Amino acid sequence: MRTASHILRLEPYTPGEQPASRRVVKLNTNESPYPPSPKCAAVLSSFNLDDLRRYPDPNFTALTKAIADKNGTTPDRVFVGNGSAEILALASHVFVENDESIGSLDPSYTLYKALAAIHDVKWVGVGRAADDAQRARSALAECRRSNISLFLWTNPNAPTGEFVEPETIAAFAGKFKGVVLVDEAYADFARGNCMSLATAKRNRNVIVMRTFSKSYSLAGLRVGYCIGPKDLIKALYKTKPSYNVDAVAQAVALTALKDGAYHRKTVAKVIKTRAAFEKALAKRGWDVIKSEANFVFTKPPTGDAANDIFSYLRDRNILVRYFPGPITGDWLRITIGTDGQMKTLLAALDDRFKKLKG
Amino acid sequence: MRTASHILRLEPYTPGEQPASRRVVKLNTNESPYPPSPKCAAVLSSFNLDDLRRYPDPNFTALTKAIADKNGTTPDRVFVGNGSAEILALASHVFVENDESIGSLDPSYTLYKALAAIHDVKWVGVGRAADDAQRARSALAECRRSNISLFLWTNPNAPTGEFVEPETIAAFAGKFKGVVLVDEAYADFARGNCMSLATAKRNRNVIVMRTFSKSYSLAGLRVGYCIGPKDLIKALYKTKPSYNVDAVAQAVALTALKDGAYHRKTVAKVIKTRAAFEKALAKRGWDVIKSEANFVFTKPPTGDAANDIFSYLRDRNILVRYFPGPITGDWLRITIGTDGQMKTLLAALDDRFKKLKG
Repeated sequence: MRTASHILRLEPYTPGEQPASRRVVKLNTNESPYPPSPKCAAVLSSFNLDDLRRYPDPNFTALTKAIADKNGTTPDRVFVGNGSAEILALASHVFVENDESIGSLDPSYTLYKALAAIHDVKWVGVGRAADDAQRARSALAECRRSNISLFLWTNPNAPTGEFVEPETIAAFAGKFKGVVLVDEAYADFARGNCMSLATAKRNRNVIVMRTFSKSYSLAGLRVGYCIGPKDLIKALYKTKPSYNVDAVAQAVALTALKDGAYHRKTVAKVIKTRAAFEKALAKRGWDVIKSEANFVFTKPPTGDAANDIFSYLRDRNILVRYFPGPITGDWLRITIGTDGQMKTLLAALDDRFKKLKG
Repeated sequence: MRTASHILRLEPYTPGEQPASRRVVKLNTNESPYPPSPKCAAVLSSFNLDDLRRYPDPNFTALTKAIADKNGTTPDRVFVGNGSAEILALASHVFVENDESIGSLDPSYTLYKALAAIHDVKWVGVGRAADDAQRARSALAECRRSNISLFLWTNPNAPTGEFVEPETIAAFAGKFKGVVLVDEAYADFARGNCMSLATAKRNRNVIVMRTFSKSYSLAGLRVGYCIGPKDLIKALYKTKPSYNVDAVAQAVALTALKDGAYHRKTVAKVIKTRAAFEKALAKRGWDVIKSEANFVFTKPPTGDAANDIFSYLRDRNILVRYFPGPITGDWLRITIGTDGQMKTLLAALDDRFKKLKG
């Protein structure tokens, strides 16, 4: 056998479609509809070619310093990855032994399950409950039952957009023997976040992860970071490829991070568009889960199937995300684009509705 | 235990020093002394900001097509990584089960040993022998004895610069049950390479890996690639992070690859400087292994210690590489820089020699 048997069996994670055409209204992978800070363009056009020729800083010194400063912590508690995806891959390896499992909410980011399969360990999902406190208790019970050593808690969650109060996650972490990695890819669009749990001096097992892919409009580069206890951060450093974040990505991310005013402005625009879009969907009889992210998880009115609407929109060059399966198969996840893009989408939906009735 | 026990025990790989100062004569990590193709600068300065905002092509379609064309194969036999280091990390996971081992030449790239430790498997090194054929036989015997499923064969080897004829590696691969990954980071500076083994239709277990970090002067971006049998390439795809190579890196690497004239010119300059430098060292009584790479592995004349010379040069802002240990501790690995840089280095050595004698 040349390829490891669990890899041969593996059902890989399927990322959202990335069409080459720029004419598509792309509301399927939660990118920002706005370009990154204009200062990023200046970094690219004035980039020192000598920094292409030489290896990048393996310790991302300037970037970790800026991230630490922004979050009120020290650089030795910061790790930077080639996108959050790399951090998740490393964490799945570093914090999970062969006889242990990876836990997450269910539904949640489907990559988690694929990561468990890559590392040949069990993945366990914790379903929705009456309330968040009840769900945290279920999660804790499941962690004990299934020997979970790494719990990936997405907050706000994807694809639902739901937000759990940091106190709930803190209470869970306090009783959990493993590592809680709070995936806060969408936290900038939410009413709160867990960063103070990660930066707290007494914190022993909470890692909070952020990305430049969403609110900073830099999905094309690959920069994610996480903050946590020194020993856990050190373990990630020990296993990363030496030069995992390239020189351009480090420089551009640093510039985007420092342009706080631009970041606040684009985030505010997305939140405003989200509110209007939620209202517009509700008015049309769609079931809308209150979102704290840059997307909305929504169920079409009775009599119309989510996957049919997905295909209908796709035929009209409007891409949204559809996740088949018993829990998610009646719903669509729609990224918040510009006001104009949401208008185009709503017009297409209205057109379909008229035709279905007529 | 929060961090896996084998990670806690782990002695991580130490990359060469990457000083922030541009005034250092940097001959320690085998970067090209020449900037990348000037066309790369144009790609950066005219980069579409929309491609920063959107996720990059997860399948590097344009880049794999160009790589396949250049090497006379098809895109489904090409994989691209966030530097060769990512490909090595994935291969160590994908082609090695828990009870198997990773093999390589010894000495060779010290990362291999660290990768085995990260994956909690055994690493076995195969030492030098009377000749290459004898060494290949030793390697094969060791593969059987130690249940090696992945053999990382660096050719030309680092840090020695030695080149093994493709026929020798082909004969080894023909009898080996596992995967042979030929790390050809330095092949552009050598008199031959193993690419035809990787692209051959009947090839079942040879992967040849290349990088843009050395001869293409793009170490600052992170782009490596490999070519091999479809099923092995597919296994790498199954386990990679979805968007492992960023949009800027894909675009710049593609441009560098297409500027073949510039590439040939800079490679020729390095080879010419290498020949002159080898001669200059030999004239000064240094032991020089004939190099087929962009560095020279060399032993100072009796009476002077390699690590002392390393420190002496370092104090003069000239960085070379010193690997402690019984096999390599008497030697220095010196990257081929510009003619001017080699002159500076030789002048510093002559100065030291005079002082030692005087």
